[in-house]
Order: sequence, then structure tokens, then C-alpha cells
Amino acid sequence: MPVISLLTDFGSTDAYVGIMKAVILSRAPSAQIVDISHRVSPQHLVQAAYLIASAYPYFPKGTVHAVVVDPGVGGSRAILAVKTEDYFFLAPDNGVLTRVLETAVVCACVAVNNRAFFLEPVSRTFHGRDIFAPVAAHLASGGDIGLLGPAFAPDTLVRIGLPRPVWTEAGELIGTIIDIDRFGNLITNIDESRIEPDDSGGMPALTVRIGGVDLSGPAVSYADVPPGRPLAVFGSRGFLEISVNRGNAKDYFSVAVGEQVVVRVRHKLSGQPGIRNAS
Amino acid sequence: MPVISLLTDFGSTDAYVGIMKAVILSRAPSAQIVDISHRVSPQHLVQAAYLIASAYPYFPKGTVHAVVVDPGVGGSRAILAVKTEDYFFLAPDNGVLTRVLETAVVCACVAVNNRAFFLEPVSRTFHGRDIFAPVAAHLASGGDIGLLGPAFAPDTLVRIGLPRPVWTEAGELIGTIIDIDRFGNLITNIDESRIEPDDSGGMPALTVRIGGVDLSGPAVSYADVPPGRPLAVFGSRGFLEISVNRGNAKDYFSVAVGEQVVVRVRHKLSGQPGIRNAS
Amino acid sequence: MPVISLLTDFGSTDAYVGIMKAVILSRAPSAQIVDISHRVSPQHLVQAAYLIASAYPYFPKGTVHAVVVDPGVGGSRAILAVKTEDYFFLAPDNGVLTRVLETAVVCACVAVNNRAFFLEPVSRTFHGRDIFAPVAAHLASGGDIGLLGPAFAPDTLVRIGLPRPVWTEAGELIGTIIDIDRFGNLITNIDESRIEPDDSGGMPALTVRIGGVDLSGPAVSYADVPPGRPLAVFGSRGFLEISVNRGNAKDYFSVAVGEQVVVRVRHKLSGQPGIRNAS
Repeated sequence: MPVISLLTDFGSTDAYVGIMKAVILSRAPSAQIVDISHRVSPQHLVQAAYLIASAYPYFPKGTVHAVVVDPGVGGSRAILAVKTEDYFFLAPDNGVLTRVLETAVVCACVAVNNRAFFLEPVSRTFHGRDIFAPVAAHLASGGDIGLLGPAFAPDTLVRIGLPRPVWTEAGELIGTIIDIDRFGNLITNIDESRIEPDDSGGMPALTVRIGGVDLSGPAVSYADVPPGRPLAVFGSRGFLEISVNRGNAKDYFSVAVGEQVVVRVRHKLSGQPGIRNAS
Repeated sequence: MPVISLLTDFGSTDAYVGIMKAVILSRAPSAQIVDISHRVSPQHLVQAAYLIASAYPYFPKGTVHAVVVDPGVGGSRAILAVKTEDYFFLAPDNGVLTRVLETAVVCACVAVNNRAFFLEPVSRTFHGRDIFAPVAAHLASGGDIGLLGPAFAPDTLVRIGLPRPVWTEAGELIGTIIDIDRFGNLITNIDESRIEPDDSGGMPALTVRIGGVDLSGPAVSYADVPPGRPLAVFGSRGFLEISVNRGNAKDYFSVAVGEQVVVRVRHKLSGQPGIRNAS
Repeated sequence: MPVISLLTDFGSTDAYVGIMKAVILSRAPSAQIVDISHRVSPQHLVQAAYLIASAYPYFPKGTVHAVVVDPGVGGSRAILAVKTEDYFFLAPDNGVLTRVLETAVVCACVAVNNRAFFLEPVSRTFHGRDIFAPVAAHLASGGDIGLLGPAFAPDTLVRIGLPRPVWTEAGELIGTIIDIDRFGNLITNIDESRIEPDDSGGMPALTVRIGGVDLSGPAVSYADVPPGRPLAVFGSRGFLEISVNRGNAKDYFSVAVGEQVVVRVRHKLSGQPGIRNAS
């Protein structure tokens, strides 16, 4: 059974997602369709770029990932079909695949323009239904990506600027809150791999400053601190997260996406900051 | 694999939708269940009538559409099973199928009352679980609609009054906002087919007045206007929609469902208004 | 096709639920996954305990119910796999199965600790992805529960205190609102079986007091009262519910979860209160 994942900003009040699934099942009746999320903030490409990158590697090989967050629907942006070693991605050429392209090797990339695979007439406003759904069904059914349109050089794909942690001369790593989840966990852009192991090869002790508060970390689990107290932990996406044990860090710190988080490696005597430069 | 679609006002916090699916899968283990929406405003028949009509034609032939928006649950209203050329519909006889019945030909219609197909004991408040789910499973599994209950004359089905656009003597078409989607797009009840083609057989230039603003249209895509500017476009449901490129028309115009939209055909010299009377 | 149900507090904005499904389908490709709800209030064990108990009996035999509401994730609480006569349950040992264990017979119970079934490396914060999903796939595929870890005595499982209705000497049953659904229906903890049948074996007439108002009941359906008027009815979960016909009882009474509801059996002349003691 082929798997198709959907990531959109369509919400769940309107019928848009159900209609996309109807079109998919009309053309790929045995597809397993998995919702990654439909609650991306409308047209919020950065949020969608992180969500798809955090989710796609957990899917079965061969999954077709359709990402429909598309401020330029009906305009001149291309729609891309990208084949990587393990997956297919279908997305507008608007940068929403920026994070994916940092972590996956592109084997093939085409600009989807072969109307033989579209639902006609193609509407001006709902390419999710008229293009993404039937093309995803084609790929999930084992159809040839090369039939969808002309090849597209991967290095010409649109990239968006994602916030990157910055290493200062004082040996601090300055990161950013890139997402806040339902539990109020603050997800930063500070990747575990950016911290240099200590002499024993493990994670060194860190001080994490947020909202004027210094947290010692990283924690091993939420239960490292009493209920209601904040902690810093490397979370399930591999990024440093600020949480409150059995509580809500967003409310605790009254912070928002985009605010700063500063990490220092503690007890370092030498000049080595303990934080790796961006590779 | 038979397909069953669900449209309800059950929301997604309670377990009601999951329980309906549990009952369906108990009786039709290989069913593909597709959510159209569960966020119809509680008991809002007009909203549900438009949603099911916009979604159903995209489903595979043979799909069973279960519409459970039911202010009269447990009262005297009948539950209908309707067979059209391509689909089955299961819904209370409360008018929620009004739009569907305008666009589909009824082949058979019965009042569902054969308790042999129900989940016993039938509760007073949750016919979605006790009647709609097992009956949908019966139909999706190829079961005979005639076994469900006595025939019901289609022309006696309850219809609800849906807002219709009105053509004025001054040659204006006065429509209504019937829905606002997650993006803030204002969906009107003005169907593309109500506009008379121009001399070349195409869509004539229109002026669309909303909230005291005149928009020239229809646009070909959102990108016809600069970001942040409003436009009028025939949307994916075939209706005229008012949008803001990369923005939110609901916020832009501060309007709500039920407010008026006026369409005029521009540059018409003759007395022909360019707008078709309702057929 | 094996069925896996999911009940979590993950919400639907983040990708957490989609990622769990991705892991499940990677290991059990033909699984039917049913969402019971993902909108349990964060870490609200009582709400989750009632939701799973109201939903599980409607699923096909053999269904694996994964309940991931887990304030102690990453701490010392065990993760349980429980086999009952008809189902499997996978949940933290935090009391979330309290209601289920009152109504189902446990055939086997193990503490899940065999890392051979986990997704490695196991994160500190997302056991839904790393433990619950792959273990659910194992059980749904017919895998042996005994391989997951050592046996665990069912009577040592954590139970949480759920609000119980109390019978007074004056012959009143004092219950509590345990949930309010999307329609504003007030679900109490007063089970139909707590009311002693009248002389003819039927449900006696009751007076239900809520927010200073006395309601006569139970009603047979919402339509027993005019639109906009309140009623008391035994709802689909077997509990007494307070509703407003075509309206919202939460708004009508301005009440919240935890508030009191008092039931009296009317027209009883003898000393028998007509309400059964807790069994």
C-alpha cells in the first residue's frame, strides 16, 4: 500500500483536505494517506519547512510527501516533483523544501507541467485538488516522475532564509525560538550536533539563557526538575528545547517565536568555546 | 476498498468521530474512511449543505457519504439513504442534502428504519454511532439499499431555503457571502454559470462591489494584484470569491457570512444585463 | 487489516501524530489507524481515562489502543502493554487506564522495556514515536506481548481517583460534571445502572438539579422539550447528560467541569431511595 503524506495550511474546518483525499483515492484506491498537519499558519513557509523536515524521515520508503503551502498559487511559481533516495516530494518552488534539501540527496527533480496528469479544468485557486492530489497518486502508484514535466536543476530551486544559530567571539551560541508546540515547549534552532563533545566524548554541561533566566542543562528528562520548573533538553527533533516539567514554557517565560536563546558551555578553561562552527 | 466519507458537526475534541469509525471498521474492515469536515458549526445545516455539495463529486464512484448534522436527533425526522447515479448519501431528512439534490439525480431513496442494521440498543442522542455508522458500512460493503426501509418519494424530502443571488432591473446581480474559509476568502453564492459570456464567448469584465469597494474582475489568479490588495476570482467551487493576495479578505473588509456582494457587467451598451436569470 | 487507535494530547498543529503514524506504517503497512482524539487537554489524565473507556468497546476485536497522555515521559513510570479479552492497551502506568480496568478483564500485563522493539535512539521527550508506535505495530501485527517485557501484576497498576457519585441519606445522588462536549452537553458521572428501576422495571421519574434549576427527567429525546429549553437525558455513554434542545447547556447554565448535579427519584413513598449504592 503506497503512502502519501499531506502537509498543508488548509485547516480542518473547510472541506479542502477531504477533497484532496477524494481525488487521491479516485486514482490510487489503496493509498494510505497520513496527515502531517493542516494547521500550518496560512502561507507560513518557515513553519512548514521545519515541519516537513522533522517528519519525513519516519515514513516508509517510497512515501510521497505533498506539501501544499502556497502563497503563489496560480502565479508563475513552478510545482516541483523531487525524488530523493527514499522519498518523493511534491511542493511549490517557493522554498518550503529548504530544510529537506539540506538533509536529503536529490536524485531527480522536474517541474510538473504535464496537464495529462491534472484534474481538468485546473482551477485558479486550488492546485492541491487539481494538481498535487492527482500527481501524488501517480507517483504513489509507481508512475514515472519523468512523465510529469521537464527536468529542473536542483541548485536552482528557491531557498528561503531560515534563522541560523550564530556563534559569538565570547563563546556563546545565539539561537532562536523557531516553533512552540501545543505543550508550550519552545523549540530552538540549536542542533545537538553544534555542541562539541567534552573530553569524555559526551555532551558538556551547558547554561541556557532565556528571558533573563539561566538554566543548567541539558536535562536528561522532564523529571530532572520539580513540577512547574523550567529545563533545557535536546528534544525529539534533535534541537534544544525549553520546557517546564508538567507545565507550559511559553506561559512561564511569556516568549514568542523569533526570540533569542543563548547557550554557553560551562567550566571551559581553555579558549575553546565548545561550540562548533556551522558546517 | 469501499470509501465512506464523513461530514459532521462533532468537532475533534470528543471521541464521537473515532467511535463512528470504530463501528464502521467493525462491519466493513477494509473501508477507506475520509473526513470531509467535523467542524461544521453545531447544527448549521446551510453550512453543511454547501460543504457536502462542494466535496462529493470528487470521490470515487460508489462512495457512501454520511452527513451527520442533526438538530433533530432522536426526534421524529427520518434518516434517509439516497442512491444517486454515482454515490450513496446517508443523512437526516432535515434539508442538509438540499444542494446535493439540485445537482444529482436520485435513483432510489428509502427511510432507514430496519433495526436489523442498527447497533443495539440505539441511544437517544448518538445516531451517528448507532445508525449512520453501521448502515454506511452496509452500503459500502455492497449491501442492498432496499433492505434498509421503505421507499421515500424524493420530491417529499425536506429542503432548506438557501440564499440565492437576485438579478435586479438595473442589471446587477446581488449575491451573498455564504462561507469564509480559513484563509479569509469570502465565498459567495454567485455561480460562474450565472454570468452571460461576452460576444467572444468568454467571461466579460465585471465590477464587484463589497464593503463599499469596487473591484475589477474576475482575476485570473491571486497574483493579478500586488500582495495585500483585494481581488475577485471564480474559485475552486465555481463560485465568485473575494480574496486578498497573500492576505485575508475577511479582515480586510471586516465582513461576515450573510453580507451582500453586487456584481455588474462592465461596458455593456445594450439593454442586455449580461447576467442570466436563474434557470 | 489490524486496527490501531490513538488517543493523545498532541493536538493537530504539530507533526507529532503524523510522525507516530509514519512509524506505525513503517512496521505494520496495512494497519488501519483511527484517531479517537488528540485534543485531550495537555496531560489531563482524568479526561483521557473517560475518553478511552467510552470509545474502546466499539472497536473491532484485536484492536490495539495506544493512549499517550504522559506527564511523566522520560521519568521512571513504566509503559504498560495490557491484553484484555478483546483488545490490547498500550499506556503509561499513570492511571490513564483506570476506567478501562474497571470494565475489562486483564488477561496479561507487561512492563514494556525490550528495546529491540523500540525506535533507536529513544528520545527523552517523544516516547509516542519511539516506543508506543513501534510497539503498537508489533502487537497489531500479531506479535507476542510476552516479548515486550516482564509480567506486571495488574493489581499494582497505578489508579487515579475518579469522581464518584455519592448517595446521601436524604435519598439524593450527588454527581459531578466530568466532561462538556462540543455541543455544550454536560456529561455527568451518574451511570444509568445507579438508578433503581421502578415497580414496572423501568426508569423512574427523576428530578435533576443543576445550577439552581430543577429538571424533570429523564427525557426520551432532545425533542421532549421546546427548542432552547434544558433537559436531562441518559446519553450515548450511559451517563446522565444535561442538554439544551438545539442549544448549548454549558452556556445556558454557565457551568464548568467539576460542578455538582443532584438527582432525586420522584414520587417514592417508601423509604427506598430508588438509587443503588455503588457496587
